[in-house]
Amino acid sequence: MYRAGIDLGGTNIKAGIIDENQTILAQASVPTGAERPAEEVIADMAQLVRQLMETLKIEERELAGIGVGAPGLVDAQAGVVRYSNNISWENVALVRELGNYFSCKVCISNDANCAALGEVRAGAAKDVSNAILLTLGTGVGGGIILNGKVFEGSNAGGAELGHTSMILGGEPCTCGRRGCVEAYVSATALIRDAKRAAAADKRSLLNQMCDGKIENMNGKIPFDAALEGDKTAKEVVENYYTYLAEAIANYVNIFRPDVVLLSGGICNQGSRLTKPVEEHLSFLCFGGDRAFVPPVRCAVLGNDAGIIGAANLLGQNS
Amino acid sequence: MYRAGIDLGGTNIKAGIIDENQTILAQASVPTGAERPAEEVIADMAQLVRQLMETLKIEERELAGIGVGAPGLVDAQAGVVRYSNNISWENVALVRELGNYFSCKVCISNDANCAALGEVRAGAAKDVSNAILLTLGTGVGGGIILNGKVFEGSNAGGAELGHTSMILGGEPCTCGRRGCVEAYVSATALIRDAKRAAAADKRSLLNQMCDGKIENMNGKIPFDAALEGDKTAKEVVENYYTYLAEAIANYVNIFRPDVVLLSGGICNQGSRLTKPVEEHLSFLCFGGDRAFVPPVRCAVLGNDAGIIGAANLLGQNS
Repeated sequence: MYRAGIDLGGTNIKAGIIDENQTILAQASVPTGAERPAEEVIADMAQLVRQLMETLKIEERELAGIGVGAPGLVDAQAGVVRYSNNISWENVALVRELGNYFSCKVCISNDANCAALGEVRAGAAKDVSNAILLTLGTGVGGGIILNGKVFEGSNAGGAELGHTSMILGGEPCTCGRRGCVEAYVSATALIRDAKRAAAADKRSLLNQMCDGKIENMNGKIPFDAALEGDKTAKEVVENYYTYLAEAIANYVNIFRPDVVLLSGGICNQGSRLTKPVEEHLSFLCFGGDRAFVPPVRCAVLGNDAGIIGAANLLGQNS
Repeated sequence: MYRAGIDLGGTNIKAGIIDENQTILAQASVPTGAERPAEEVIADMAQLVRQLMETLKIEERELAGIGVGAPGLVDAQAGVVRYSNNISWENVALVRELGNYFSCKVCISNDANCAALGEVRAGAAKDVSNAILLTLGTGVGGGIILNGKVFEGSNAGGAELGHTSMILGGEPCTCGRRGCVEAYVSATALIRDAKRAAAADKRSLLNQMCDGKIENMNGKIPFDAALEGDKTAKEVVENYYTYLAEAIANYVNIFRPDVVLLSGGICNQGSRLTKPVEEHLSFLCFGGDRAFVPPVRCAVLGNDAGIIGAANLLGQNS
């Protein structure tokens, strides 16, 4: 049997069909057009899956089901996207509405949960069944996999690892609170901190590498400037490692996963990112060396994680 | 069938035998004598259970099993207390050693996990199957119940809710880290903050209520002084509510439990504690009123929670 996975993003809808070996046999994407009514976006999602089925000459009876990863607050049990800032959805009954186009089962979850499940089934954590994933992007998404299954929380709105406060009263977060992990370890936060540091030290390489325009700052420049020996950039990067390790230690003390995964553009830094974080972790986790301290790995599937993970939502509750 | 539950504490070993209605039919306690070798403490635990069986005229074939809640880092799967500061144990194979005295099954878990399970089975959360418990005592223990079962973490050393950092680089914590929840919401932390406030404001009622001796400060005085209208005490208490709500919001954003439970002497404050915390929570939880915000309740079983919970460890994995 085949399964379809859809990654519903603010910019694009990506879909793929996988086989029983977790291989994506075909994939395609279309712009989300998030300004449109939800029904139109859902019609496009259905159309995208139909198109892939035609490409692969798959009939509906060969499709075990369709999984969707959606951004925002997703009520997986009810099949409803409660609220998504990115695509301006509120209480959209996605499972029912997409289900109208197909006879097979439809499941949904939060996009970060899907990415985590994808990496556990076919990516950087396929050797384990308990993992935590942090997506380090514009925001910080959290995915929690326990015994090979997505942990959504007991009621909708759980697994929001990025929205746990780390510095009470600290930097404002998109969720309305202050001091959240997202406000320190997202790519957005790193760029904010690098801009501030560059503005405070005009002689820092950070400015040169932006071609003198601070608005050109991105998540790669601080690492590049630090590698060139720039003291100010080094401080930005080292603070970032500290924030990330503190956040991860909190999740380790709660979940003790087999592995901690990181994803997003910052992961291009590879072991330059994971090694210092692991070093911090060995001191921060409860029980020190009397307890298991999980390795920190970069995700490997990129965009495919969301598709593979979404397709694997099927059978999560069986 | 009957089950025995043992609450192994730094000061006393408490044990009880329960029936299938979660009623404690008999209980007894002896001093732990934690300075002795672990084998002697374990022999006393066995003796205590035998004594209760005699009292109730229960034969061993009527005892389904024995559960133990132990302080510190407990490896429930291996049946080993990895490390416990309170009783100076390191790598004690408690399940095997206590098992030598009985033919029935022996299970162990962390004491806060047992307290949480007890409250879910027979106490303040018996209407739900997903709850978080914080024990607000000398330290802060965390218990997580998911689908009616203790969540230990995927590897030993999880569920340490008190050892998640809330203020990076803040107050030193007993675990060696800084800024942990325990360092702000334990009774010890409240007393520390009240002492500091009293020292800084000699005219505060906090001083009078200590009979002028700051070392007499306890966890009740700040609430009493605040109730009398003392401004300095009010500030201490309001900060405490803030810390507690911030910590709970973090756990809600991860677990979305049906209920959050608090235990420890501070719970004598009842709704004077839970109401302001619930008010803060409604603003702090991710998704605001689009998601479920759990009620905050005080535990009701007191010391019995540990015994009942420990007895209920049996059958957790079936």
